[in-house]
Amino acid sequence: MSSTYKSLKEECYEANMELNALGLVIYTFGNVSAVDRENAVFAIKPSGVPYETLKPEDIVIMDYDNNVVEGSLRPSSDTKTHSYLYKNWENIGGVAHTHAMYSVSWAQAQRDIPIFGTTHADHLTQDIPCAPPMADELIEGNYEHNTGIQILDCFKDRNLDYNEVEMVLIGNHGPFAWGKNAAKAVYNTKVLETVAQMAYLTLQINPQAPRLKDSLIKKHYERKHGKNAYYGQ
Amino acid sequence: MSSTYKSLKEECYEANMELNALGLVIYTFGNVSAVDRENAVFAIKPSGVPYETLKPEDIVIMDYDNNVVEGSLRPSSDTKTHSYLYKNWENIGGVAHTHAMYSVSWAQAQRDIPIFGTTHADHLTQDIPCAPPMADELIEGNYEHNTGIQILDCFKDRNLDYNEVEMVLIGNHGPFAWGKNAAKAVYNTKVLETVAQMAYLTLQINPQAPRLKDSLIKKHYERKHGKNAYYGQ
Amino acid sequence: MSSTYKSLKEECYEANMELNALGLVIYTFGNVSAVDRENAVFAIKPSGVPYETLKPEDIVIMDYDNNVVEGSLRPSSDTKTHSYLYKNWENIGGVAHTHAMYSVSWAQAQRDIPIFGTTHADHLTQDIPCAPPMADELIEGNYEHNTGIQILDCFKDRNLDYNEVEMVLIGNHGPFAWGKNAAKAVYNTKVLETVAQMAYLTLQINPQAPRLKDSLIKKHYERKHGKNAYYGQ
Amino acid sequence: MSSTYKSLKEECYEANMELNALGLVIYTFGNVSAVDRENAVFAIKPSGVPYETLKPEDIVIMDYDNNVVEGSLRPSSDTKTHSYLYKNWENIGGVAHTHAMYSVSWAQAQRDIPIFGTTHADHLTQDIPCAPPMADELIEGNYEHNTGIQILDCFKDRNLDYNEVEMVLIGNHGPFAWGKNAAKAVYNTKVLETVAQMAYLTLQINPQAPRLKDSLIKKHYERKHGKNAYYGQ
Repeated sequence: MSSTYKSLKEECYEANMELNALGLVIYTFGNVSAVDRENAVFAIKPSGVPYETLKPEDIVIMDYDNNVVEGSLRPSSDTKTHSYLYKNWENIGGVAHTHAMYSVSWAQAQRDIPIFGTTHADHLTQDIPCAPPMADELIEGNYEHNTGIQILDCFKDRNLDYNEVEMVLIGNHGPFAWGKNAAKAVYNTKVLETVAQMAYLTLQINPQAPRLKDSLIKKHYERKHGKNAYYGQ
Repeated sequence: MSSTYKSLKEECYEANMELNALGLVIYTFGNVSAVDRENAVFAIKPSGVPYETLKPEDIVIMDYDNNVVEGSLRPSSDTKTHSYLYKNWENIGGVAHTHAMYSVSWAQAQRDIPIFGTTHADHLTQDIPCAPPMADELIEGNYEHNTGIQILDCFKDRNLDYNEVEMVLIGNHGPFAWGKNAAKAVYNTKVLETVAQMAYLTLQINPQAPRLKDSLIKKHYERKHGKNAYYGQ
Repeated sequence: MSSTYKSLKEECYEANMELNALGLVIYTFGNVSAVDRENAVFAIKPSGVPYETLKPEDIVIMDYDNNVVEGSLRPSSDTKTHSYLYKNWENIGGVAHTHAMYSVSWAQAQRDIPIFGTTHADHLTQDIPCAPPMADELIEGNYEHNTGIQILDCFKDRNLDYNEVEMVLIGNHGPFAWGKNAAKAVYNTKVLETVAQMAYLTLQINPQAPRLKDSLIKKHYERKHGKNAYYGQ
Repeated sequence: MSSTYKSLKEECYEANMELNALGLVIYTFGNVSAVDRENAVFAIKPSGVPYETLKPEDIVIMDYDNNVVEGSLRPSSDTKTHSYLYKNWENIGGVAHTHAMYSVSWAQAQRDIPIFGTTHADHLTQDIPCAPPMADELIEGNYEHNTGIQILDCFKDRNLDYNEVEMVLIGNHGPFAWGKNAAKAVYNTKVLETVAQMAYLTLQINPQAPRLKDSLIKKHYERKHGKNAYYGQ
């Protein structure tokens, strides 16, 4: 494979395969992209290609206006959501979308995922937001582009920072997650799925389970992400 | 294996093995068939043979009137349901039946699976119907044949099109799914099982979860199956 | 391994390993035995030996009065329950006991598993009985022997036939299953665990789910076990 | 690897890898340590290192006052909790901490796990305690050290013996378990996770499920741990 975007395609390919290895997708129910900020392009999974047969050279290179830059296959049907996020959120390097079981179930329930414990607080200090389903005219219009707008509107309404909250549920649909690169977007997708299952079980065991208190939220987030962080190497 | 129906048997064998690989069956709790419309025969799993020892040459060839055309083993005990569907629904190429966990649980609960999200709408625009258990005289009569009648009656009563709704639950029993070929019938069985689990979890999280709104149902179904579909290659 | 009971030990060993392969046990939480009616002995797993290191020659040969006939290891701590069943139920050839997840949960809930569907009726026509926890004086006495008595009392009280109902839950403890040989006892353990999970999910989806009607119970059981059975080869 | 603590590091490494193999952790969400009482040091997993790339020589050797004795990597962020337990509980040889699914869910629900059955009683005679979340000033202070204090306070308040109850939940956080060595701490973590899932399911099936009665608690614990124990070899 000779291409200007060889390493970008490989990053994207590896992240898509990891989604599958982590049990977050069945069949073709998911897609990951990776951006190259210098060249203002991103690599994304082709639409409807099973993970079993996916190859790095199948990955499609797109610009932020949804033009194919390189690749012979049609890109993911969700491409316009990815491009909208890259265009508007300059710090992100990768985006992942799945129909993972527990994340989708919260999205279908149209409920934010409450912050119940330190597993959640190790990654973000907020409830995981569930954006409401879109207005009918937006659905009938440029749907995937408008999904991007829906995500940004949700973050604006709630005063959330995409640098800290790296995940969202779209009501009735499912999760999007992002991060500094494609691997981090996949990592956040797995964390979201795990936290979603824990929150579900917590409410089954105790429907009155209290939200995590502020001091613990702050402590766990800071020890991993604060300026005096002491987690990791 | 020299047989007029070698490739038909292999299609059927592969689909049965896939059922097992996808975790949709334990022991011998399932069967898939594949039809050859030109010769008006179908291939089906033999009854009670474990997937571990199943071989392509074990597959039994039947006509639509339930006569064995080729094969030394007894066909699946559910054969008459398969033949009834092939006889009456001319566009289908494969049928699958299982006792998969979440599908059976909805069938035992005697509940249609509500359309709660886009995972469901990507495949069909309707709730997944649960046909009521049969009347006593039908059960005591030609049971498996009458199961086929029960499925068709359910589709007629609800004005459903088998070309669009490719799956059904039989009350107290379990799922049947079909499609253009045996592999598609297996795919639909997996989709049904996944959607069944998502709907179960959705109701656990929010017992008042609303049905997906019409605009989203239409959008997701059309982008995959409509005349301007843009999903896949 | 030279032993009069070589093949009996191997049958027992294989059945124990299958328990592990089917995900029905963790660590040493289970045991299977196989009987040799001619010699009035049975082979059973040694106590506390992990499946990873278990070997056929580790299997212990016991008589019905709980004397070691052959073997250097201590037999399963549940041995006296097995011997009591062999002594009193002359048609059984194998017994299995586990702490499998869903079976134990119904046992801890002290509830019979209602017959909700055909997966259940394919194997037995009755609710799966949950024997009450034993009286204190029986617990403090010859506990494992008395567990056997508890099972037989339960079958007597409810007028159940051990030839048809090949499984039971002991309240607060877990499942015992049996059959014509050790492999069938393991098969019944897996069926029980599957049916237990289905019944649990059914009640979560519909707390008013009705019991399977008699005509369907009879039909499914008869087609597999009746004198005109047409399931299997 | 030439080191005074080679075998201690290997014990610790093996126990950490076992945690991963048993499905008790994702990514880096857990840590196990092993103590060398003679030298008053313990070996612990380095912080944030994935199990896939972890090597025995990465393990860090610490003294009870949290000084690094050997190793170039930063130790687990939970190190001070481990050291506090080693310092105060002289009989323990290993400690494990995870974010395992069902254990965390009970911790988030802030509920003790009731003793519902013999699987539980085979290991301990008490409900598994859930220590309340810490006071704000302790969280903002020396957090991981204070987590150790929180565990000991909980055991003192409830008059529990750490030699018998080898596991605890920290409210809103997750489980800690210990034992005579690191492998036993991992074993107890798996037992806790299994018992946590069983108790959850038990309450779903029967919200009024009774606690196990005293005679059965005593019998099962004694047959495995009493002076006349007859379980195992």
